[in-house]
Amino acid sequence: MKVNAYAALKPNEKLESYSYELGELGSEQVDIKVAYCGICHSDLSMINNEWGMTEYPIVPGHEIIGEVIAVGKAVKNLKIGDKVGLGWMSSSCMSCEQCMDGHHHLCYDGESTIVGRNGGFADYVRGHWSWAIPLPDTIDMSKAGPLLCGGITVFSPILLGGVKPTDTVGVIGIGGLGHMAIKFLKNWGCEVVAFSSNPSKKEEILKMGASKVINSTSHEELESITGKLNFIINTTNVTLDWNSYLTALAPKGRFHTVGAVLEPLAIPAFSLIMGEKTVGGSPIGSPALTKTMLDFCVRHAIYPDVEEFPMTKVNDAIEHLKTGKARFRVVLKNE
Amino acid sequence: MKVNAYAALKPNEKLESYSYELGELGSEQVDIKVAYCGICHSDLSMINNEWGMTEYPIVPGHEIIGEVIAVGKAVKNLKIGDKVGLGWMSSSCMSCEQCMDGHHHLCYDGESTIVGRNGGFADYVRGHWSWAIPLPDTIDMSKAGPLLCGGITVFSPILLGGVKPTDTVGVIGIGGLGHMAIKFLKNWGCEVVAFSSNPSKKEEILKMGASKVINSTSHEELESITGKLNFIINTTNVTLDWNSYLTALAPKGRFHTVGAVLEPLAIPAFSLIMGEKTVGGSPIGSPALTKTMLDFCVRHAIYPDVEEFPMTKVNDAIEHLKTGKARFRVVLKNE
Repeated sequence: MKVNAYAALKPNEKLESYSYELGELGSEQVDIKVAYCGICHSDLSMINNEWGMTEYPIVPGHEIIGEVIAVGKAVKNLKIGDKVGLGWMSSSCMSCEQCMDGHHHLCYDGESTIVGRNGGFADYVRGHWSWAIPLPDTIDMSKAGPLLCGGITVFSPILLGGVKPTDTVGVIGIGGLGHMAIKFLKNWGCEVVAFSSNPSKKEEILKMGASKVINSTSHEELESITGKLNFIINTTNVTLDWNSYLTALAPKGRFHTVGAVLEPLAIPAFSLIMGEKTVGGSPIGSPALTKTMLDFCVRHAIYPDVEEFPMTKVNDAIEHLKTGKARFRVVLKNE
Repeated sequence: MKVNAYAALKPNEKLESYSYELGELGSEQVDIKVAYCGICHSDLSMINNEWGMTEYPIVPGHEIIGEVIAVGKAVKNLKIGDKVGLGWMSSSCMSCEQCMDGHHHLCYDGESTIVGRNGGFADYVRGHWSWAIPLPDTIDMSKAGPLLCGGITVFSPILLGGVKPTDTVGVIGIGGLGHMAIKFLKNWGCEVVAFSSNPSKKEEILKMGASKVINSTSHEELESITGKLNFIINTTNVTLDWNSYLTALAPKGRFHTVGAVLEPLAIPAFSLIMGEKTVGGSPIGSPALTKTMLDFCVRHAIYPDVEEFPMTKVNDAIEHLKTGKARFRVVLKNE
């Protein structure tokens, strides 16, 4: 089968039309007709080889919503016509310790949708059945794409980190991931404090459910919440004044980064010890957890704020995101 | 009442005989006749003002075992003749958020036994009733002192960190705290991996219950346990190759420091994110937790390996500890 896609041929250039041939379908694989695909910051990182693991040409896109059009012989839980989502991962070995324990996203031999293979800026995409997540019937497909990567990335620490409805939670960086974190936490029952370096977003952030917006460039504003937060989720990938945020944590508070900051975090041991605090991180979540999240989203009508571009305008969409104009997630639509 | 004690008059000098007058007993306080007092590394740090908060003369000593000889009017749970232990803390406000939540060791207005007041290298010591921990009847008082600070410091992360009997746990630094951690973990049912830079301790460490001793100065030996540990307790206060230890953790593994390393820990975000790992810390534990630990110690006959010196030989005892000869905790005895 021929796939029509958009690919980067080298770093820092516009994507170009690109087509490739999909080989024979593996017995555990499914093919998906792409309806929508979100654009995530890690697509940009991969397009520009910021992590040193890009193979060109690269077809980006890993926040995919679509319909199953072919299933391998061994696939038992999906059939042609099923609506599914495919996120950052497209395959896991199913037999390693992590897979057997339900943590397929930590698989020792997992495959990412856009690393060494072709992603979702295309009319078709292929994946292992385990990562083609069945969508709840009533989900809004036009907005669900970003939940498959950005959404599960912030949902996972909230659920697995044991965040309670009585907690006050900070969210650093109110972009694609951060704004979804606010919506989850609001529906969790938490008080939410947003940290943003962009004051122009303040009103929108309050509408999403934050009770307070702290200007993260203001030392005074940071100090005003000393000892108040039970949990902090960092969605940015830049070096911050880590100790200021540890100080903002209440005793037993937990700082959690999903932002892949390149420079090591400088964490004072005293700050951890005196308040029994922790610093942690996580990537996406397992297929089971992703399904749990989607059910929660449908129950509470939680969706990212999306701006839709036709797939053919992918370069305009990327430019929109790169220049910081996105409010708050960009989704490509196949027409 | 006159108290005879040993005090440091300035940094880096021998302790000298020193006596002082105890004022009127507060209604919530108790006076304790000191039978034994352990020597902790933080006594040495305080003697030499390494943390910049020492007031001279300082009477060190905060691993105290003794007998109640006077109780304030409002004290309900202790009576004259009761055997008690007094550790790093000697008072907490009892009314702040942390005290009310059972975390008296995180009290916003807590008092340490040797900060701004006189500790246990003395014949008598005073404290708030809440921190005079009643001892189980059958405890070996001659060995119990070090449990009150060093012991609870490593017991707390094991219990509150959710360490399970099926876990493989690393202990870094096999001195006073580390050797107690090994004994707790052995009785917890865990497989214990000890990290020591001193090969001469290997046989003793294996006897305590470790199944393996890793030479922490050997990169090869560190690499041999990549991905194997569910939990690591660091008892040292020097800068280590943090990422090597994060790499030694299994997915979802937790690194916990009780060692107050002065230089900030350099923690790569990718190491946290890709394996869902955390880095945390903690000080001592609450009075309730200390009582729980003492009951556990009696049930399993868990005691530190102690070397006893008469209180009058306090300077010899300190020298023994400073020169790395202690196997593994030094206790002073009032004769």
